[in-house]
Amino acid sequence: MSITARALDQGPARPTLDGLMAPKAVAIVGASADPARIGGRPVDYYRRAGFNGALYPVNPNRAEIQGYRAYPSVADLPGPIDCALLAVPAQHLLGALDAVADKGAQGAVIFTAGFAEMGAEGAALQDALSTRAREVGVRLLGPNCLGMFHAAIGHCPTFSSALQNGMPLPGRVGLVTQSGAYGTHLLELARARRIGVNYWVSTGNEADIGVAEVIDYLVADPETDVIGVYLEGVNHPDLLFAALERARLARKPVVLMKVGTSVAGAAAAASHTASLAAADDVFDAALREFGVARCRTTEELLDVIYAASRAPLPRGRKLGILTISGGGGVILADSAAHHGLSTPPMPEPAQQALLARNPLASFANPLDVTANAVNDFSLVRDGLESMVRDGGYDMLASFFTSWPASKVLGPQLHAEFKASQPTYAHCPHALVITAEDAICAQYEADGLLVFADPDRAVGAMAALAGLAEAFDRPARAAVPAPVPSLPDIPAEAVGEAAAKQILAAAGVPVLPERLVNNADEAVAAATDLGLPVVMKLVSPDIAHKTEIGGVALGLKTADAVRAAFARLIDAASTHAPDARLDGVLVAPMAGDGQELILGLRVDPVVGAVAMVGMGGIYAEVMSDVVLHRAPVSVEEARAMILRLKSAPLLTGVRGRPPADIAAAAEALSALSCLGAAKAAQIDSIEVNPLLVRRDGAVALDALIIPAVAQG
Amino acid sequence: MSITARALDQGPARPTLDGLMAPKAVAIVGASADPARIGGRPVDYYRRAGFNGALYPVNPNRAEIQGYRAYPSVADLPGPIDCALLAVPAQHLLGALDAVADKGAQGAVIFTAGFAEMGAEGAALQDALSTRAREVGVRLLGPNCLGMFHAAIGHCPTFSSALQNGMPLPGRVGLVTQSGAYGTHLLELARARRIGVNYWVSTGNEADIGVAEVIDYLVADPETDVIGVYLEGVNHPDLLFAALERARLARKPVVLMKVGTSVAGAAAAASHTASLAAADDVFDAALREFGVARCRTTEELLDVIYAASRAPLPRGRKLGILTISGGGGVILADSAAHHGLSTPPMPEPAQQALLARNPLASFANPLDVTANAVNDFSLVRDGLESMVRDGGYDMLASFFTSWPASKVLGPQLHAEFKASQPTYAHCPHALVITAEDAICAQYEADGLLVFADPDRAVGAMAALAGLAEAFDRPARAAVPAPVPSLPDIPAEAVGEAAAKQILAAAGVPVLPERLVNNADEAVAAATDLGLPVVMKLVSPDIAHKTEIGGVALGLKTADAVRAAFARLIDAASTHAPDARLDGVLVAPMAGDGQELILGLRVDPVVGAVAMVGMGGIYAEVMSDVVLHRAPVSVEEARAMILRLKSAPLLTGVRGRPPADIAAAAEALSALSCLGAAKAAQIDSIEVNPLLVRRDGAVALDALIIPAVAQG
Repeated sequence: MSITARALDQGPARPTLDGLMAPKAVAIVGASADPARIGGRPVDYYRRAGFNGALYPVNPNRAEIQGYRAYPSVADLPGPIDCALLAVPAQHLLGALDAVADKGAQGAVIFTAGFAEMGAEGAALQDALSTRAREVGVRLLGPNCLGMFHAAIGHCPTFSSALQNGMPLPGRVGLVTQSGAYGTHLLELARARRIGVNYWVSTGNEADIGVAEVIDYLVADPETDVIGVYLEGVNHPDLLFAALERARLARKPVVLMKVGTSVAGAAAAASHTASLAAADDVFDAALREFGVARCRTTEELLDVIYAASRAPLPRGRKLGILTISGGGGVILADSAAHHGLSTPPMPEPAQQALLARNPLASFANPLDVTANAVNDFSLVRDGLESMVRDGGYDMLASFFTSWPASKVLGPQLHAEFKASQPTYAHCPHALVITAEDAICAQYEADGLLVFADPDRAVGAMAALAGLAEAFDRPARAAVPAPVPSLPDIPAEAVGEAAAKQILAAAGVPVLPERLVNNADEAVAAATDLGLPVVMKLVSPDIAHKTEIGGVALGLKTADAVRAAFARLIDAASTHAPDARLDGVLVAPMAGDGQELILGLRVDPVVGAVAMVGMGGIYAEVMSDVVLHRAPVSVEEARAMILRLKSAPLLTGVRGRPPADIAAAAEALSALSCLGAAKAAQIDSIEVNPLLVRRDGAVALDALIIPAVAQG
Repeated sequence: MSITARALDQGPARPTLDGLMAPKAVAIVGASADPARIGGRPVDYYRRAGFNGALYPVNPNRAEIQGYRAYPSVADLPGPIDCALLAVPAQHLLGALDAVADKGAQGAVIFTAGFAEMGAEGAALQDALSTRAREVGVRLLGPNCLGMFHAAIGHCPTFSSALQNGMPLPGRVGLVTQSGAYGTHLLELARARRIGVNYWVSTGNEADIGVAEVIDYLVADPETDVIGVYLEGVNHPDLLFAALERARLARKPVVLMKVGTSVAGAAAAASHTASLAAADDVFDAALREFGVARCRTTEELLDVIYAASRAPLPRGRKLGILTISGGGGVILADSAAHHGLSTPPMPEPAQQALLARNPLASFANPLDVTANAVNDFSLVRDGLESMVRDGGYDMLASFFTSWPASKVLGPQLHAEFKASQPTYAHCPHALVITAEDAICAQYEADGLLVFADPDRAVGAMAALAGLAEAFDRPARAAVPAPVPSLPDIPAEAVGEAAAKQILAAAGVPVLPERLVNNADEAVAAATDLGLPVVMKLVSPDIAHKTEIGGVALGLKTADAVRAAFARLIDAASTHAPDARLDGVLVAPMAGDGQELILGLRVDPVVGAVAMVGMGGIYAEVMSDVVLHRAPVSVEEARAMILRLKSAPLLTGVRGRPPADIAAAAEALSALSCLGAAKAAQIDSIEVNPLLVRRDGAVALDALIIPAVAQG
């Protein structure tokens, strides 16, 4: 995937993707009679898929291609077209684009490579191509892509080998991938998992159509229930996030794999905040907002797509387990705990009723009917029905090893599952078995999910629970800024005193303090503010004052203040002789409390992002930070703080008094509003620490790195 | 799995498992002519497996059973037997045992249920059975098990449905499972993964033979390369750990899944240490010692067994990646980082040499030969050979999507892999592809691992790296106690002062201190020890003194000491009026340093376990603790401390001085030696905090809970 910069939203309104995605007539320019060639394979696919529109191969040398009548040129086509596949060399593309536009095409697919992925010259070619496409009103897929398909209508302008074995299984999944090769890999695996993929779009260089717009199309598309996404990079985050939010509000699951996490992690930035929050964490936090089911592995991606496309979303996280093996039940219960599901026991009377039927079994949860169920298969049905009716579980998992594959047991078991199906039709229900595809498909036809690995079954259903929770959240309201007019960030590096003034103006509470330049001024300030005081060096060039002895605490007398001033200046000249020195800050002692770090960072992709971590160096050592796109409301800030693993330090553990989380949340929200409003002026802001007292919070130190100061 | 207590190592020497595992003659007592019945299915399996010894069905009513000559009784058998399957009701088992012993049987398999798993009466029956077996010199497998098989000789006394589709694929894997049903599930999945399982043993109630002894057999067995274990409970931890250590020293991988983690986690114990270290963590720490590859999921278990049974162990953690797709390469690199493997780039000259051949490709690492490799397949071979020769990678992963399945590309690709195979024969090499079984098997025959999911490929190879590292560790030496004669732990609850005396006697450094009973004694002690001092309440009933105001710090004058005494006594009477009060402890101020928590806990399964965590409440809030079976050497204690996620707080971050880790390690080792030597007297010990100064470490507070105090 390689893209070039291009202007969005300029020029006349562009066609929708309807022509590309659901055409009634398609031209293949450069069609070949040889199904092994790049211009021949798509014709072969259309023929085998039984495209239900008109297909026009264009080839000046042949009257017929693979059974279709061929045309010497686009101009010779007998009717209008909606979509064209341009299987021609780069130098013929512009002409071909003009020709298909003349015939009414609204979409064009370009496999051809040699564009932005090949450096500046290719990028210029690509710009020319997208400019021309815009001028003639054609939407481009590619270049340098593997094409797409829309299986339900047999539309398949692609040379992906994924269709060599036939069209995908029927289904309601739409898949969009930035890598054609990895898309092909996913399609092969999806077929093996009996996942029906109706749309696949590989976006290639995204000269025009990007992932976001395809997602938008699939959100609106009535044939699509689930959207699978494979991302390598995000070109237009605003479009992507808007599409993801539309999907969430439409309650249409987006299951997404974003790669490059290890590379992104290596891109460490300068300020503390940045080093705590890798870019992937930022993106991950954004995806969380939109309720995207983000998957780390290929298998997880397919598992969640599989589950979301076959099962209803659960109403909660309570899992009921039915098993014929103690071991299987324990494994499912372990997995539930691992994936954040609960496994409460059945109500006592319901247990007793089942025990009366089979006293050697156990009906708490897991419900272990034991292998004795072979003697009374109705225990399976009654167990399942009681789990839903009496247990009130939100989802079910049933472990039956190879019973479904048995010629003797299989049909009886299937009858019980089928008979009880109406009871649990509203719940995801995973059957953990080993059986051949045909038997698995039989259970799937009844609405069950089939897995061989119990942990994958539970993990996929837990992902469904996460989707349901995200879908239930209302649309996010605009976050009002805490102060009416937010201050600008100077273009020059900002020292502590100036930083705190800016933060104070933005609504982040700070202590009263004075910048002084000699010992007499220090004593006067201390007397005014009230002893005891603290004193600190102020320099845009000294990030970690404590380490060089640039902080003096608990100064109780005028003499102590005077001595400390000398000591601080001495420390600066010894340890940071080249640092610019703005002076020394005098402030009252802040008192006791729990320290937080608040951060604001402008990510090149996601934009302004707010961060909170526990104070001291634990946030860094333990990677315990929470991110959210800025601005965040006070309520969202509070939720961020409570999501810290170390949040119990604030809520009160071991007799420690609870800290004023509301005040901390207000400070974080205020910082985030400043960051969002002035993102263009900011590289990063760090408040370290924010002292959260029993009553109130106050920023004790702050660092602002302006955008321009970053070279 | 249900067991009864039984005495080990009493009575005469018992037969080995040879008769059970590798018999030349087998009797099936209670054999049936109907392969659907429990006494008939094993006969059917033996027949289909072509058992290469003598099989004697015993049935008083038939002269022939499933083609074998049948005998009316065991006494009528024409020759001696090594093993018997006793498919008879419980009340006939003792007689059958006598009869088969008379015929020389050294092993017997008992499917029959209704023993220890059914309560006290069944447990008594089971005891009678194991006693008789011991008396007549027969080793028992079961009761209440699904039997076993040894595929290479066609020995299959089992009614598991896993053999319904024929014997397992040939191979060198031995599998032992405490659940027969889950064992069956694993066998079905192993077949689907083309894993050859030569032995499977389901141990059932373990009346005699347990998991440990089977592992021991497989460690010594020349037909076995890899041992897979499924555990629900550990009946004889010493035997298990000894067997695991023998496996490690024999460099034979043990791949293990232990379930019940969520239940174990819920069993919270009383003291801090216990609440920090759940029983599963203790077991996990023990498995780590023996280099066991512990797997959380079924799929991971099979992946690691698969990889360990087919690939050599790697010499390090450097992964080289070859790919035809940028996406595939990125995913593999991400997975490497996730699983703790490194992906250093190729040396510059080697990159240049390959670039000269294909300038559009990238040969850093991942080596992305791009789809252009179709034009020059030798790039694949040259890339692979250069990765091993020039890159020095320890393992390889190659991503080729569906190329191997292509009729055109497949054979050419396979030729390149085969030709380069001698170069990488010493490395694990995972091929990530989608292809039918026959094609996968072709690559496997060349020594490659085949996966469809890149992350599973990398995860399995990372597990191999972990095995190799564990195998390279020498046998563990005995840990000498730091002091010659370790103190006993009183049977009564131990207060802080007494606890510190015990710890001091055991070699854990403590501050000099005095227990006082009135204000005058306190002032005298403070004067003797040197002001400033700290004072604390001493009571066996007050675990968290700070929370009730039971600690006074920084007392600089005699008056302050006097006032503090009154305040402490007041706090005790207010907040813990019923607590027994031993007095007040006076000690010098300890100075600055980083606080650790040291713990010692006697786990009912694993025995004495040492624990270290960061001080304050972070260890608990962040679950950042490290465990190791006690005793630990100073060097092992040091390694434990450095494995803390928060270890940078000790090694020095952000200008903080490094703490004396050596002194902390000595203290931890001393505590662990005390715990190991006096395990029977101890429930738990907690040193909280151990203050680790720049020079030296000292226990500031301690709590000892004796074993008997736990009711």
